[in-house]
Amino acid sequence: PSAAARAAAHDRLAGLATPAGAWGRLGELAVWLSACQDRCPPRVPAAVRAVVFAGDHGVTVRGVSAYPAAVTPAMVRTIVGGGAGISVLCAVHDVALRVLDISVDDELTGVPEAVRAHKIRRGSGSIDVEDACSADEVRRALAAGAAVADEEIAAGADLLVSGDLGIGNTTPAAALIGAVLGLDADLVTGRGTGVDDIALAQKASVVRAAVDRVAPRVGDPVDLLAAAGGADFAAAAGFLVRAAERGVPVLLDGVIAVAQALVADRIAPGVAAWCAAGHRSTEPAQSLALQALGLVPLLDLGMRLGEGTGAVAAVPLVRSAAAILGRMALLADVLA
Amino acid sequence: PSAAARAAAHDRLAGLATPAGAWGRLGELAVWLSACQDRCPPRVPAAVRAVVFAGDHGVTVRGVSAYPAAVTPAMVRTIVGGGAGISVLCAVHDVALRVLDISVDDELTGVPEAVRAHKIRRGSGSIDVEDACSADEVRRALAAGAAVADEEIAAGADLLVSGDLGIGNTTPAAALIGAVLGLDADLVTGRGTGVDDIALAQKASVVRAAVDRVAPRVGDPVDLLAAAGGADFAAAAGFLVRAAERGVPVLLDGVIAVAQALVADRIAPGVAAWCAAGHRSTEPAQSLALQALGLVPLLDLGMRLGEGTGAVAAVPLVRSAAAILGRMALLADVLA
Repeated sequence: PSAAARAAAHDRLAGLATPAGAWGRLGELAVWLSACQDRCPPRVPAAVRAVVFAGDHGVTVRGVSAYPAAVTPAMVRTIVGGGAGISVLCAVHDVALRVLDISVDDELTGVPEAVRAHKIRRGSGSIDVEDACSADEVRRALAAGAAVADEEIAAGADLLVSGDLGIGNTTPAAALIGAVLGLDADLVTGRGTGVDDIALAQKASVVRAAVDRVAPRVGDPVDLLAAAGGADFAAAAGFLVRAAERGVPVLLDGVIAVAQALVADRIAPGVAAWCAAGHRSTEPAQSLALQALGLVPLLDLGMRLGEGTGAVAAVPLVRSAAAILGRMALLADVLA
Repeated sequence: PSAAARAAAHDRLAGLATPAGAWGRLGELAVWLSACQDRCPPRVPAAVRAVVFAGDHGVTVRGVSAYPAAVTPAMVRTIVGGGAGISVLCAVHDVALRVLDISVDDELTGVPEAVRAHKIRRGSGSIDVEDACSADEVRRALAAGAAVADEEIAAGADLLVSGDLGIGNTTPAAALIGAVLGLDADLVTGRGTGVDDIALAQKASVVRAAVDRVAPRVGDPVDLLAAAGGADFAAAAGFLVRAAERGVPVLLDGVIAVAQALVADRIAPGVAAWCAAGHRSTEPAQSLALQALGLVPLLDLGMRLGEGTGAVAAVPLVRSAAAILGRMALLADVLA
């Protein structure tokens, strides 16, 4: 992001027809957007585009989720049909939406070919005992995510959202965050879809086994994605890296997106500067990773749905922030 | 609000294609809206209408604000011209906006006649030593606010916002909240437009003097508005009372709106059930009054601008909530 545009935006914010600092975090958000766009005042994001990266996770057989893996392909179909939570929010807030089957454990027969165009594999290994996928699959998934970012930017995207879909995916997210930040499994393991105390303890033991197994490989973020993430995580990470390279800002969702951003920022240091946090989820690992990335979420509504919903719910705040800085009168003019 | 619609909305929320509780506060907001509309699922609020009630306050001469009273008429003109913060947010989020001069200490020559149509008086008494206005003026202002609510509802409003405008108005807001809740002036006095420590101490002494002076009259909310509020506060309170009588929900803004809601709920017990809190402001009295009203704010962004901005910034969350409950697939259908 541009230091010059940031400074200009900061000055303009201070000159608006409001008491100094009265816009709070909305003012900071406007300054960040100016810096990303290298333009003061910033344009109001009009072409916001969300991509949901779907994949299954082998750990589901360990009982880490309240739902069976069959829900993942059913929810891919629900997004295609327009009835998912993310579908509804995108429609209300004029956000373009696509879902991609990166590693769903299903053939997804009959869904549009475009949804499966970037499929890397079916499912992932159970990360407590084996790698999620191969290093070659990670490289292909990173490239796929980058290609998708390029496609979205070619379609005009001025703000991107990466969403997730996949039963069991809070477990690899917790493992990645625990491994990268060196945190105990109990600190990073949350209830995900809403598991009970017994399943939560089981989930923490799976996260602990995964973190212990992959710890020696944490210095290589690409290898780490193979070890503890999966092809869907790699594709989303590739998407975030490419968005930052292209200078397009990203609004992050919950624990999955933030884990992916944490790894993406290790692959290409500086990615986090192009990210804002849409919301605080109820997953403890998300807050810990946001803190490590220096990001403070815009919304804190107790949401834990995933799919990108917490980010898309925050899109109107980004538009509010941009409009404030661009369209408000200056105090000097009001008092003239 | 309708208990039957609330129960139906709660059931529908539990059946959506998400883990139970995954929508967090957005789910609760959708249930509240259903109850207000007596309809499940709720309609997405399309005709959101904001009214800014402007007035000056005699306490401004005590140095309670970082700005002179001349800013009030200048900001009325800025709203009329479309350059105020509330103007910009309303334009971005498709909210109709009007500003009314209820008790601005200026003739506002040249502004459209409609802006001055409900003017009660010029300015208010300094509430540390005298009443803000007369009981008769309060009654006229309450009736004006009710008439304005009727006009907005006649124009189709399905969600209302009451905004405030007036240098010095966080002082009567703090005094009203302190008086109604029996709280010490130091607990309810905030920095308003951003006063320094010396002015903050002076402001607290003004609030303390006002609370002490009006305490014997706290049992009569109409008299209390005359003693410590003012005509602008009374008009907004009348607006809130009438909205509740007509069954139209209201999104509250910061400390001014919440002080007005607190008094309105004393005038007509039950008003608060028709209100949701748009945001948490930095004014301490706002949080205390919200707690007393049983309301939890949607946004917490450190905003302290007033004008209704914190409420209008939250309007997209209400639309999100309504759309989720109305348009999402049910889990039973997804898994069928």
